Amino acid sequence: MADKAQLLEAIKTQGELVRKLKTEKAGKEQIDEEVAKLLQLKAQLGGDDCKHTFVLKTAKGTRDYNPRQMAIREKVFNIIINCFKRHGAETIDTPVFELKETLTGKYGEDSKLIYDLKDQGGELLSLRYDLTVPFARYLAMNKITNIKRYHIAKVYRRDNPAMTRGRYREFYQCDFDIAGQYDAMIPDAECLKIVYEILSDLQLGDFCIKVNDRRILDGMFAVCGVPDEKFRTICSTVDKLDKMPWEDVKNEMVNEKGLAPEVADQIGEYVSKRGGMELVDELLQDPKMSQSKQACAGLADMKQLFCYLELFKVTKVLFDLSLARGLDYYTGVIYEATLASTVPAQQQNDSASEEGVSVGSVAGGGRYDGLVGMFDPKGRKVPCVGVSIGIERIFSIMEQKAEAEKVRTTETQVLVASAQKNLLEERLKLTAELWEAGVKAEVMYKKNPKLLNQLQYCEETGIPLVAIIGEQELKDGVVKLRTVTSREEVPRSPGWCPLGAGIP
Amino acid sequence: MADKAQLLEAIKTQGELVRKLKTEKAGKEQIDEEVAKLLQLKAQLGGDDCKHTFVLKTAKGTRDYNPRQMAIREKVFNIIINCFKRHGAETIDTPVFELKETLTGKYGEDSKLIYDLKDQGGELLSLRYDLTVPFARYLAMNKITNIKRYHIAKVYRRDNPAMTRGRYREFYQCDFDIAGQYDAMIPDAECLKIVYEILSDLQLGDFCIKVNDRRILDGMFAVCGVPDEKFRTICSTVDKLDKMPWEDVKNEMVNEKGLAPEVADQIGEYVSKRGGMELVDELLQDPKMSQSKQACAGLADMKQLFCYLELFKVTKVLFDLSLARGLDYYTGVIYEATLASTVPAQQQNDSASEEGVSVGSVAGGGRYDGLVGMFDPKGRKVPCVGVSIGIERIFSIMEQKAEAEKVRTTETQVLVASAQKNLLEERLKLTAELWEAGVKAEVMYKKNPKLLNQLQYCEETGIPLVAIIGEQELKDGVVKLRTVTSREEVPRSPGWCPLGAGIP
Repeated sequence: MADKAQLLEAIKTQGELVRKLKTEKAGKEQIDEEVAKLLQLKAQLGGDDCKHTFVLKTAKGTRDYNPRQMAIREKVFNIIINCFKRHGAETIDTPVFELKETLTGKYGEDSKLIYDLKDQGGELLSLRYDLTVPFARYLAMNKITNIKRYHIAKVYRRDNPAMTRGRYREFYQCDFDIAGQYDAMIPDAECLKIVYEILSDLQLGDFCIKVNDRRILDGMFAVCGVPDEKFRTICSTVDKLDKMPWEDVKNEMVNEKGLAPEVADQIGEYVSKRGGMELVDELLQDPKMSQSKQACAGLADMKQLFCYLELFKVTKVLFDLSLARGLDYYTGVIYEATLASTVPAQQQNDSASEEGVSVGSVAGGGRYDGLVGMFDPKGRKVPCVGVSIGIERIFSIMEQKAEAEKVRTTETQVLVASAQKNLLEERLKLTAELWEAGVKAEVMYKKNPKLLNQLQYCEETGIPLVAIIGEQELKDGVVKLRTVTSREEVPRSPGWCPLGAGIP
Repeated sequence: MADKAQLLEAIKTQGELVRKLKTEKAGKEQIDEEVAKLLQLKAQLGGDDCKHTFVLKTAKGTRDYNPRQMAIREKVFNIIINCFKRHGAETIDTPVFELKETLTGKYGEDSKLIYDLKDQGGELLSLRYDLTVPFARYLAMNKITNIKRYHIAKVYRRDNPAMTRGRYREFYQCDFDIAGQYDAMIPDAECLKIVYEILSDLQLGDFCIKVNDRRILDGMFAVCGVPDEKFRTICSTVDKLDKMPWEDVKNEMVNEKGLAPEVADQIGEYVSKRGGMELVDELLQDPKMSQSKQACAGLADMKQLFCYLELFKVTKVLFDLSLARGLDYYTGVIYEATLASTVPAQQQNDSASEEGVSVGSVAGGGRYDGLVGMFDPKGRKVPCVGVSIGIERIFSIMEQKAEAEKVRTTETQVLVASAQKNLLEERLKLTAELWEAGVKAEVMYKKNPKLLNQLQYCEETGIPLVAIIGEQELKDGVVKLRTVTSREEVPRSPGWCPLGAGIP
């Protein structure tokens, strides 16, 4: 009874909160959320009210994938996984939740977006925020020093709803990483080759892969006169250049982050540069830039990278000094691929997708040589370089492209049908024979379906062939196989029976 | 500072708890859990202690899947998904968490095993406990009245650790369900056909599919004189017959559940019966059983089911009156498949796996016509029948079978190698050509690897072919392709260059 009293009290408090929010004209999202909570509390009361207050929905920021979306998703995954396998990658899987402390201190400010599990006694747990930190934890825990692996799985971010039109709180990540101590830039070049192959294979239109190096950025900041402790924060301001004009970026540097205007101007000169191998050479000879050991190391590696990319026939790569990328843990080369212009205007308004990837960005990554060491009790480092494919964005582009088309959600090749009554048993028998022969076959779960309904089912679901049984066919020991669209009989090749071999 | 004081207080309290448990010689699992919590609290203090107290592990009851386990899992999934597709199924996906109230009241006593998310403002959420309830929620929410779908995904149960040797808190479920109003027993028979095909395809050894019907059970209880309100609880006692001798089961019925001994004895007589079509006929003529309308309806459907199974050529099916299955929501036919004896002795001690599936059970399911209606605001029913494949058990059997074998974790066909120095560029070029041709190829990320190391890498990872470049080959414009195991040169078929077409 005490429980019930508590519940009633909670309902009262929650009801007041809702009324207050409504009076204050709070945001619709916030009100809806609190109303949902109120209804849930009421539902716990049980009784007759229960049914009426039940909210039939998925959790905020999540969605179901219907069969059509799943069919598109499967197609995209197949292309990507094929590429990963072509490059000799293995796959691993990690749990959907980790010890809370595993994630603590890895995401900076964004830590507030982590979903925690309720403390139900036992360990303190959080849903994974990305696949990179669990990967680093896995390597350290199993003392693995080299692996080439991919991992496709869902991650969870309690993202601010006001900023998240089109963004989900549960979404897929699709990561490929190479861990290990290898000769410089060879794995890095392979990551870019993979981005190039996947974007080509997916046929999403023209794209561009921007590359830069954290050491070049840091060297540039140093020679321009940015104080050491401001490198990371200035870096994150530079990262906004793809969404903001230079004037605003400079403004932020000078007025918010306290940089001298002439320092900002010098950065401005550098970050406007983009090009290929010739830009690398230019910067290597730049009197200022060449004073930074870090920058020189980054530039030398960049030169090597361009060599390997040429051997790999990877084009569309642009060395872009304005590319910064948000995550703290990058230590060397960084990259990001953007689509030319397939994203419709409506989507352009969305804020950036995960990990500071900018509008139109469909892949990104870089080298992170320090992360695994954070998990190792002795701090042993495992150099890593990786790439994350922006799979959710790719899904939505593919879904839009497929909007006009009919997407098949099953792979059924034949429907076993009949024009006459009382042939259910014969239909079931033939269907089982087809399954036995490995043919994808369906039969309607009705004793006496109309032929028209059976053909209509084929047309609706895209089943190409219909096998028709009738009294005459049974007598003759044959089956009529028709193409559904043309209604034409499929010519029988020798050895066509039992159907199996004859099905395309 | 207040936060820090609180933290120190919490550490003190937790420390005392740990000491108390140790004094009381509590279970190791419990102590470990509380120690982990203590270390986590200490880790939050930060400072120098942080590194030392860090616990490098996955959350309790969860595990990583390594590449070897993933390769086996992929093989199993492929066989199962192929079967589902052969039967014309689509797939859907639902979020990993649901509104808490969606799961409330669906699992009876087991509700305590549900993982709740922390209340971080917003909705109250829980991790999904199975795939059936989200499926029912999906159907009701989208007003779908018929679909044949499969869903393979992880589910979460905060299972009592003391009872869970070998059981995980995160594990895969693999469900196939047919929703819709169809002519009786046709979809039910297809579910059994699917179990039969999958267990045959997986080659796990001999198996048996037991079937029964909730209506037959209920009718039996009625004619034996069980009071209506005790049907469900007596049903769950009967469900223990595969793990307990009849004497113990009777004991529970009489002494714990207050059944008259002669009622229990009558039940005992019925539940010892198993057979085929002839048993169905016997029971249809049984003077007592035939008094129950319910039982008769169930028996008539069972007869129909056996007819369809014969047409589908499904053998190994046993009508077993002792089969009850735990879940409340079944309304008609129920079934369960068990393996003959492939499970090693060590595993036999495990308690039953999910959903009351008994030892050795690898698939189970049944008809649940009421569940979707629980979600529909107007209570509209959608009849459903489905099957869940015990995929985790199958993984572990497959893993044990593969223990002696070498399992390949990549699909790489060729390693591009060289015996001489300074040929990295040539190796990279050839590798890219192979990728271009769709060949799965790898190259070592070293400027000058030793040939022996390259060959060893092939042997370790199971790469069957090695393409060797040398000065002479470059001059001649050829590549030597060798079989790794035999070191023999692969004979060149016409049109063999560029390699692509020649690779098996």
